[in-house]
Amino acid sequence: MAIGLKDLPELFPIPGVRLGTTKAGIRKANRRDLVVFVCDTGTEAAAVFTRNRFCAAPVIVAQEHLARGAPRALLVNTGFANAGTGAPGIEDAAACCDALAARLGIAPHEVLPFSTGVIGERLPVERLVAGLDGALAGLGEDGWADAAEGIMTTDTVPKGASRRIRINGVEVTVTGIAKGAGMIRPDMATMLAFIATDAAVSREALAAGVRAAAAGTFNRISVDGDTSTNDACVLLATGKAAHPTIVAPRGDAYERLAAAVKEVAGDLAQAIVRDAEGATKFITIDVSGGASEADCLEVAYTIAHSPLVKTAFFASDPNWGRILAAIGRAPIARLDVGKVTIHLDDVCVVRDGARAPDYTEAQGQRVMAQAEIHLRVDLGMGPAVARLWTCDLSHDYVRINAEYRT
Amino acid sequence: MAIGLKDLPELFPIPGVRLGTTKAGIRKANRRDLVVFVCDTGTEAAAVFTRNRFCAAPVIVAQEHLARGAPRALLVNTGFANAGTGAPGIEDAAACCDALAARLGIAPHEVLPFSTGVIGERLPVERLVAGLDGALAGLGEDGWADAAEGIMTTDTVPKGASRRIRINGVEVTVTGIAKGAGMIRPDMATMLAFIATDAAVSREALAAGVRAAAAGTFNRISVDGDTSTNDACVLLATGKAAHPTIVAPRGDAYERLAAAVKEVAGDLAQAIVRDAEGATKFITIDVSGGASEADCLEVAYTIAHSPLVKTAFFASDPNWGRILAAIGRAPIARLDVGKVTIHLDDVCVVRDGARAPDYTEAQGQRVMAQAEIHLRVDLGMGPAVARLWTCDLSHDYVRINAEYRT
Repeated sequence: MAIGLKDLPELFPIPGVRLGTTKAGIRKANRRDLVVFVCDTGTEAAAVFTRNRFCAAPVIVAQEHLARGAPRALLVNTGFANAGTGAPGIEDAAACCDALAARLGIAPHEVLPFSTGVIGERLPVERLVAGLDGALAGLGEDGWADAAEGIMTTDTVPKGASRRIRINGVEVTVTGIAKGAGMIRPDMATMLAFIATDAAVSREALAAGVRAAAAGTFNRISVDGDTSTNDACVLLATGKAAHPTIVAPRGDAYERLAAAVKEVAGDLAQAIVRDAEGATKFITIDVSGGASEADCLEVAYTIAHSPLVKTAFFASDPNWGRILAAIGRAPIARLDVGKVTIHLDDVCVVRDGARAPDYTEAQGQRVMAQAEIHLRVDLGMGPAVARLWTCDLSHDYVRINAEYRT
Repeated sequence: MAIGLKDLPELFPIPGVRLGTTKAGIRKANRRDLVVFVCDTGTEAAAVFTRNRFCAAPVIVAQEHLARGAPRALLVNTGFANAGTGAPGIEDAAACCDALAARLGIAPHEVLPFSTGVIGERLPVERLVAGLDGALAGLGEDGWADAAEGIMTTDTVPKGASRRIRINGVEVTVTGIAKGAGMIRPDMATMLAFIATDAAVSREALAAGVRAAAAGTFNRISVDGDTSTNDACVLLATGKAAHPTIVAPRGDAYERLAAAVKEVAGDLAQAIVRDAEGATKFITIDVSGGASEADCLEVAYTIAHSPLVKTAFFASDPNWGRILAAIGRAPIARLDVGKVTIHLDDVCVVRDGARAPDYTEAQGQRVMAQAEIHLRVDLGMGPAVARLWTCDLSHDYVRINAEYRT
């Protein structure tokens, strides 16, 4: 139901990046399922990928290609993830890159492939390649909105974000799109997300920027704790903007750009959770007072992954005992239960590890009835903090994932 | 729906243990909700408790009482868990022990209290104490079946198991009951389980026996990954059987008894998963070929806790890509994805990390349509193995846990 998501915002074009989207009939007929990004020469790129050991063939190929130099094109398909497909899957991904490279007159390693969809089935290479001409025919810098739709799977809405900033007096644009609604617990990576800017940036600075952006955004969301085999986040920089090149990941220009990239990534990450499979509640979990950020994160993830907490949110039930039980089993070295405080929005529910004396069920119910809830946990042990975005577990999550392949 | 569970088996009485069950109206009227165990003098006891840091008041009190000496009575209520209740909760648990001790003419520390139910609400001490006389009036060695019903919460069936063995030519009986259907990932403990034997055993040997039994049974099940605040497993030994006392946790007599206790615990642990909230499938996960048992367990738990794997089981969908993705994100130090093999019962689904060449979807569907499924994962890296029992994630799990307090 895409909690609190408005229509796709205006996605400003990025000079030097053209996009084409088509219906290639990869798994289902008559839906946009193939997207091509073509970048001008001089574009730099950096990416983060899934840490799932069973990473998909396109992830392996994209990493290998990216290591050989800057890409000139990205090739994205939905329908099939080309994961769990072994050596033939690698060949399929490479064949698709070859086909696109031939049409563009570039080297195969200048194409990065991305796939998302059902795991374990071979990619229908012929249908994908047959769709390339259609995608290329529609190439344009104004293709972001169509591309945002073209990478959707169980998403109910397209996801995009855009920012304009000034660097040394020059206007610079950052635009990104993402897909993802389930199998979401990105691990040092994301679902599929593609962000581009016309800023002039060295690869080193770009790599630092994408890592920093993902760490605070895509790596801080969880729908169901399942890390996808295909997660990837790519950041392209065409260098068309006429400011001095940002060489290193520091200094005012870098910080401005990194902040804009992080804002776009944050919008996209939030959009993924807001559109999570079956979600009816968008929940921000802030854990403070931890001995370390890692401890805060463990507590936040334990709460976010608890099926009992998630079903209580779905039921609008202020069943704080389940939150407390989740905190109590979080794998952290030290916890003083007598110091734990829990707030639902402004309502103090638990103080000193037990029900707050002045808490009433009606107060809790008022907050839990909202579509957006801010859960704050303080461990009372140290200065560290961590934030996570998650959602509830509904009947529809089960329905969607029980029916996905049918 | 209690997958594959037959009616409660005959529960053989344990000489020296009398049980009384009554309807005390603790949270709901007209249901059995209060159970008292009374043991003859000379009974030894050992127990394991939850490792959730937010352990309930009765867990704290029971641990303290047990440390002071052998118990003469167990007092169990459902309805309210007396967890998250702070210092008043401790006083409530102690007051209940005092009331039972006075009626039995024993010391308060000879009573171990156990509670299960809603977290965060105070125990209605008056109603509980008012029910004691009714429970004591019905005391008898044949009270096991009623007690099995008296400790149920969201359980749909009572759970019990019984074994008779011979030690040094003497007949020895082991009988146990358990409750639990949700918030199940016992951690070095169990849901509520009470096992008794008339064997003559030292406390040291008994403690070793209960730890060993729980480790291979209650600690190898997971419904939803949520560890309860109230988990406890108690093993009583009345010493009424006329064999020489088992002094140390070794030797033939100890091994026989430990095996029988483990069998009873295994039956009870399986019964909990078979009756898990909303479960429609009973799944045995065997992970072999790990570098260590801990690695095998991590992989097994990651599979067992994956909402995507669980919904695929619910849908009878052989979506092995989700199993593979779960293995790929399991937190183990080393994984060679090219060596992973997956079987569903006798069907080889994945070989060398990719779809098995001769696997057909029809084979997978045949196995997945069963109510009981054996999932075997081989990591191909070492000699270690681990087994886990779990269940699927259904619409009813969400319904039950969304409606629990209403």
